[in-house]
Amino acid sequence: MPRYKLTIEFDGSGYSGWQRQDNAPSVQQTLEDAALALDGNPVQVIGAGRTDAGVHALGQVAHVDLAKPHPAHKVRDALNAHLRPHPISVLKAEVAADDFHARFDATSRSYIYRIVNRKPDLTLDKGRAWKMPSPLDADAMHEAAQALVGRHDFTTFRDSNCQADTPVKTLKMISVTRRGGEVVVETTARSFLHRQVRSMVGSLVEVGRGKEQVGWIADILKAADRTACGPVSPPDGLYLTSVSYDPLTD
Amino acid sequence: MPRYKLTIEFDGSGYSGWQRQDNAPSVQQTLEDAALALDGNPVQVIGAGRTDAGVHALGQVAHVDLAKPHPAHKVRDALNAHLRPHPISVLKAEVAADDFHARFDATSRSYIYRIVNRKPDLTLDKGRAWKMPSPLDADAMHEAAQALVGRHDFTTFRDSNCQADTPVKTLKMISVTRRGGEVVVETTARSFLHRQVRSMVGSLVEVGRGKEQVGWIADILKAADRTACGPVSPPDGLYLTSVSYDPLTD
Repeated sequence: MPRYKLTIEFDGSGYSGWQRQDNAPSVQQTLEDAALALDGNPVQVIGAGRTDAGVHALGQVAHVDLAKPHPAHKVRDALNAHLRPHPISVLKAEVAADDFHARFDATSRSYIYRIVNRKPDLTLDKGRAWKMPSPLDADAMHEAAQALVGRHDFTTFRDSNCQADTPVKTLKMISVTRRGGEVVVETTARSFLHRQVRSMVGSLVEVGRGKEQVGWIADILKAADRTACGPVSPPDGLYLTSVSYDPLTD
Repeated sequence: MPRYKLTIEFDGSGYSGWQRQDNAPSVQQTLEDAALALDGNPVQVIGAGRTDAGVHALGQVAHVDLAKPHPAHKVRDALNAHLRPHPISVLKAEVAADDFHARFDATSRSYIYRIVNRKPDLTLDKGRAWKMPSPLDADAMHEAAQALVGRHDFTTFRDSNCQADTPVKTLKMISVTRRGGEVVVETTARSFLHRQVRSMVGSLVEVGRGKEQVGWIADILKAADRTACGPVSPPDGLYLTSVSYDPLTD
């Protein structure tokens, strides 16, 4: 039973999230329906990151077992044909080892978060970025964010529904950069808690718009108290950009 | 009767184009409805560029006369409030001279055209770029495009419905650049013929995918024959990025 590694892009706007759910369209279910149409057998598609409703992906990774062997590029093209007209595309399909696991073998996940810093409503970027009217100081946000790098108890930035065993995670990097009218947050970790990126971004924006001082992020991290967190930013601006399987980056 | 200059961004996907039409939603009509709601009087919104159905704008410029004077930022905010939930935003409103004319005073218009060079269907960029599966040689496209710069009879690149007095136009610049998985065409002229940019882009892609040689663009330009043009590229990838009113760039 050949196993394939899939690299997937999707517009998360119309989905309840990655994970299969009763009575709500999910990215996983849509992919599984396409795989069933291709393979003739019910199959599971296991993703590296369980993105929330409205969150997008430029490089989600998943694995799938198919009953019949096919050349990898045919798996990609056939899945894409069955995925039409859903806004989900398989960018790459590769034959994987039988024991490759998209979720458990991942050594890092990277996200970007796009903030469009202006007052007028979004048009082309509606659902694809967070509009923030208050002028943001990206340098202050970047400086504040550096307190989050390293191994910490991230309880403050963890959704109450998070099912992880522990709130202790290691953030590999986080950067905040202004690119014209946009402020972009990039971050990488082996794994994140539920809503951790959106909780960090929402809190950093409190610093960026001058409501809180740079040192506040370190303070609320140390508090290890969910009620200390800033407002959680909306899903619109969040993109899972890549998943790495390099044991050296572990 | 104060005149205002408006800088406008819109997602053209759901519109029949800029220009007001019976029985089809246009960007101009939607703006005029918003201006009527603000001003209480029927008003005309005159745009610099009459974009086609499905074409987007990051910086269309228009002028409008309102019966009552308001501070310019209030005009912007009130128009935007009345424009909701349409994907049209006034980025900037400025008080203009009484004789300022968005269309006739424009000294240059700039467009970009986005081509996503890959086989899998677009997801987040659906309706916002042209997907081209054949590998494109952006350097060859750029070299070929230079034959278009300057004053020429652009009959080859002119739609049969074009209402301009003459097919002779002066192209100020055109460039083709690869940016990762995208090929981006940027071009500027005082004015363009109907579908000129999409006709040039469609023809350049014939060179980029190796179907035609670099010199072919110069050949079909010289032919001054509409039937010599390559396929016209779809509107999805086209954005009016800016309009200039600097007499020095005339």
